[in-house]
Amino acid sequence: MPVGTAATVKGLTPAELREAQTQIVLANTYHLWLRPGLSTLEAAGGLHRFMAWDRPILTDSGGFQVFSLEGRRRLDDDGVTFASHLDGSEHRFTPENVVEFQQRIGSDVAMVLDVCVKLPAAREQLEEAVRLTSAWARRSAAAPQRKETLLFGIVQGGLDRNLRERSAREIVELDFPGYAIGGLSVGETREEMYEAASSTASLLPQANPRYLMGVGTVRDLIAAIDCGVDLFDSVYPTRCGRNGRAMTHAGELNIFNAAFVSDPSPLDDACDCSTCTTHTRAYLSHLFRAKEMLGPRLLSYHNVYLVNALMRDARTAIEAQRWREFREKSGPDAR
Amino acid sequence: MPVGTAATVKGLTPAELREAQTQIVLANTYHLWLRPGLSTLEAAGGLHRFMAWDRPILTDSGGFQVFSLEGRRRLDDDGVTFASHLDGSEHRFTPENVVEFQQRIGSDVAMVLDVCVKLPAAREQLEEAVRLTSAWARRSAAAPQRKETLLFGIVQGGLDRNLRERSAREIVELDFPGYAIGGLSVGETREEMYEAASSTASLLPQANPRYLMGVGTVRDLIAAIDCGVDLFDSVYPTRCGRNGRAMTHAGELNIFNAAFVSDPSPLDDACDCSTCTTHTRAYLSHLFRAKEMLGPRLLSYHNVYLVNALMRDARTAIEAQRWREFREKSGPDAR
Repeated sequence: MPVGTAATVKGLTPAELREAQTQIVLANTYHLWLRPGLSTLEAAGGLHRFMAWDRPILTDSGGFQVFSLEGRRRLDDDGVTFASHLDGSEHRFTPENVVEFQQRIGSDVAMVLDVCVKLPAAREQLEEAVRLTSAWARRSAAAPQRKETLLFGIVQGGLDRNLRERSAREIVELDFPGYAIGGLSVGETREEMYEAASSTASLLPQANPRYLMGVGTVRDLIAAIDCGVDLFDSVYPTRCGRNGRAMTHAGELNIFNAAFVSDPSPLDDACDCSTCTTHTRAYLSHLFRAKEMLGPRLLSYHNVYLVNALMRDARTAIEAQRWREFREKSGPDAR
Repeated sequence: MPVGTAATVKGLTPAELREAQTQIVLANTYHLWLRPGLSTLEAAGGLHRFMAWDRPILTDSGGFQVFSLEGRRRLDDDGVTFASHLDGSEHRFTPENVVEFQQRIGSDVAMVLDVCVKLPAAREQLEEAVRLTSAWARRSAAAPQRKETLLFGIVQGGLDRNLRERSAREIVELDFPGYAIGGLSVGETREEMYEAASSTASLLPQANPRYLMGVGTVRDLIAAIDCGVDLFDSVYPTRCGRNGRAMTHAGELNIFNAAFVSDPSPLDDACDCSTCTTHTRAYLSHLFRAKEMLGPRLLSYHNVYLVNALMRDARTAIEAQRWREFREKSGPDAR
């Protein structure tokens, strides 16, 4: 899922997202709650109509963003009170109002409010986060539901295997249609992340979608698919695109590299996106050096297109029983 | 002509420019000379291939930009020496090397190097500018030509009717395939500009294109067409678009206006561009308030589309002998 934080995947139109074969985008409850806010979104007929996107939308619960607001939020058993990063105004998330918000804006997949802990963290802190995350998941599941919105549970527990097991057990008991592996990509090493994602994924029902939040790079995507994960989101492709970093079939490249100034070849000669079939590295290099907004736009498009193609190819390989071969070809060493 | 200063019409792809029915774009010799420079443009196979634009390109001569570099340029009879705004490096334009540059990068229409004076200006200064502009035009016309590039002359003279007449006479004598009215939109009032454009246009051959440089708004375009002008360039549509100002059939509007926050209507309900048929004012308002790059992009597209449509409609009206009616409908009062 490309990330459309503020109801826009940065720099790209809905038409381009479809052209890039995007199946679903993610939007952030925290950001949309603050701006444009529920009333504007409802007046527009929901988030899909507001952003003119007619395919599925998954919204996160805002938990991750709120718990990143160090010193600007106050957690209690019932919810979390926080100050807006925009204007300092006070807001409050509870398991119930976050589910209600996501339903009212018309999310296709909503996430429960969870307690996300930055790593490394003390065991007591992780345990408390697991306890609250489970309690809030129960309240979320008991809240009024809208049949068009699937509500996914989230497993926490940091890098502690026992806590992950307990969290997974308590969340799976609630019988959600899908499950997310939360609390990773928050400070741990790549190996720790793989280990935790892998062990957690194995505890989740195979028949339901398993979603690893906040991943990421080609290497991490391949590794996570290998762990049994089905669904991902990350700002990585668009953030890199804005900063001149291209994901290619031959690894990542920095368009500011002096070698590209007169390079007449496409960004990625194995890619058939409109950026690669229309423009040269020399032109993209020029756009970034001249700080022209077309540069970030063209690179973001390419990166989103490339990740979508990678996911399609991965699905095809899995269906054709060629996953291992595909993984070796596309994995850590290849990129 | 939308302006593609640095080989890109800010924020828009060549495909979008075609979709918006752009016939020709302008690019700036001054900027391209400095970055990416002649060798990169030649290595790419010329400016068209570099920027992936397969329709006509007009390049200005760099005169306007160089004469804007107050305190950073030194004029002599033979040319002008200036310091780059990018890195302070010293460069020199002469009538000959500017024509050669434009030919080598493959411009379809090149402009002669002229001496542009900021208004108000003393008569002696304007007279000297007219003298040098004519002398340089003669040298430009005598320089080696490339048959694929049309070289246009430029008339100067500020707001002085006698100087404009002298300049027009001396330039027209050189028998260029097209003529520009230069030295306007540089500090004078709108009425002074109309007066000078009108009197100058009447001195230029009707059978050749007449080009008013640096115009502009819907009101100015209509007024200039009324003076007999055929060709225009301006950053106005894209600069306004980036700043949240939309040109519409009902006048200009500022998307930051509070009334638009929940406005479900299109930017311009008389426009059939993809911005207007896909997005609401409420969404565009949100994008600008959230500083999302999609906002400038969508508004720039709309403004370019709208000006192109206005020009098409003007041509149709002229051909159908309905110009006066069209002018009343679309002119100063209507917008």
